[in-house]
Amino acid sequence: MSFQIALVQFEPIRKDVARNIQIIRRLLKGIKANLVVLPELSNSGYLYRKPEELLPYAEKGDCSDPFLYVLQEISMAVGGIIVAGYAELADGKLFNAAAAVSEHGIIQNYRKIHLYADEKSLFQPGNTGFSVFDWHDVKIGMMICFDWIFPESARTLSLQGAQIIAHPANLVMPYCQDAMVTRSIENRVFTITANRIGDENLDGKKLLFTGRSQITAPHGHILYRGPENVPTVHIMDIDPQKASQKNISPQNNLISDRRPEFYDLLG
Amino acid sequence: MSFQIALVQFEPIRKDVARNIQIIRRLLKGIKANLVVLPELSNSGYLYRKPEELLPYAEKGDCSDPFLYVLQEISMAVGGIIVAGYAELADGKLFNAAAAVSEHGIIQNYRKIHLYADEKSLFQPGNTGFSVFDWHDVKIGMMICFDWIFPESARTLSLQGAQIIAHPANLVMPYCQDAMVTRSIENRVFTITANRIGDENLDGKKLLFTGRSQITAPHGHILYRGPENVPTVHIMDIDPQKASQKNISPQNNLISDRRPEFYDLLG
Repeated sequence: MSFQIALVQFEPIRKDVARNIQIIRRLLKGIKANLVVLPELSNSGYLYRKPEELLPYAEKGDCSDPFLYVLQEISMAVGGIIVAGYAELADGKLFNAAAAVSEHGIIQNYRKIHLYADEKSLFQPGNTGFSVFDWHDVKIGMMICFDWIFPESARTLSLQGAQIIAHPANLVMPYCQDAMVTRSIENRVFTITANRIGDENLDGKKLLFTGRSQITAPHGHILYRGPENVPTVHIMDIDPQKASQKNISPQNNLISDRRPEFYDLLG
Repeated sequence: MSFQIALVQFEPIRKDVARNIQIIRRLLKGIKANLVVLPELSNSGYLYRKPEELLPYAEKGDCSDPFLYVLQEISMAVGGIIVAGYAELADGKLFNAAAAVSEHGIIQNYRKIHLYADEKSLFQPGNTGFSVFDWHDVKIGMMICFDWIFPESARTLSLQGAQIIAHPANLVMPYCQDAMVTRSIENRVFTITANRIGDENLDGKKLLFTGRSQITAPHGHILYRGPENVPTVHIMDIDPQKASQKNISPQNNLISDRRPEFYDLLG
């Protein structure tokens, strides 16, 4: 089975949704793919002093506001679905969210469960849980950035049958890319980490985002690792079925060999 | 706080407990350490056709048989405890076990929970669970070889406060050493993977063990990685307290930030 994925690395501009839409339109122009993954907070950028400051750039998770509306349009042009991180406004609360958008609208919305650092003063902790959706018989799960450090995130998606983990990110630490190799090996899944690039400065605080967006295969091969600070679209074919074969030896299956009776501290 | 650890990499010889004892005695002669870690199945070697063939080399887990008896002696000479993988015989059943041995005898016995490949036809699946013991105010947990690929193993030990994960191994796959870096990062623990070297051949089956025994620090630094095929003792000082600081940012604690309400598939 052939499934075309596109990973997009770019620099979202703070407080400029229109500009971010323009950048994404340009990067994806003429591209065909079954699944496109964009970075975390692609609509808004990252640094805000307080929720009120971010509020004007956040969107309802229904494709009625500009950013997701355009993603729905682009989805039609691309011929596949788009997973994008965005600042979501729901019931007056802000979430660091990721939406899977098709030409028909939202397929699934995920709200980041593990918030990082100052995100805790902007966003509510995610309340959607981790879940997996089907797209033309391919099972896709979403997690966002810092979720990577908690092995429970990718594990919970994999136990629901995820073949591909779409992972929008705004990484500032250097650890994630190598750790995603482990996430692939331990779960036998594809991972697509779409990281942002560039830096942001606010009130003397400076963040440098690390780029090096990455695609890993179920056995842990790094299929692609992007540059540190260049906007990039990388397109490749994968076979999602390879993530369904969980035998690491004739006698060992990474899922059925689990022994949950000894993991009761975890859940 | 200073805590001296010693990692031992060697080639256990099949069916020759006396020789393996001799090798270990020689390697540890004159060495002082708070904690020594030896490979998996250090008493027996790895490849056996059936349980009956391994039985004569297996030991009760009480230091009354030769291998653990000598480890108790060596423990006194070394001035610390020894964690060693060994073939254990209990109630007529074989386990792939690890014992933590002090000069006073067994502190804790662990039976490998995730058996690899043909081990399933030799050993009973471990029934002890993962647990942690105190040694002079340092918390130590044990897991064995293939347990590494299940993130639940190191996680369960870490949730019980393990500062050091002692990890006897007989690795044949190339993935574990890099993955242990992730285990350190996600749990903020020290890991000591004492791997064996050499090869074994039986009935046309050939296994090549990968050496490269390794020590990782809580932030994921590789403090030591050994050679591929040379017997080695590596001694170093670590500060186990570094594993107790779980804050990865001022607002993030790797343990208290877990959200088990969303991990119910795991345990």
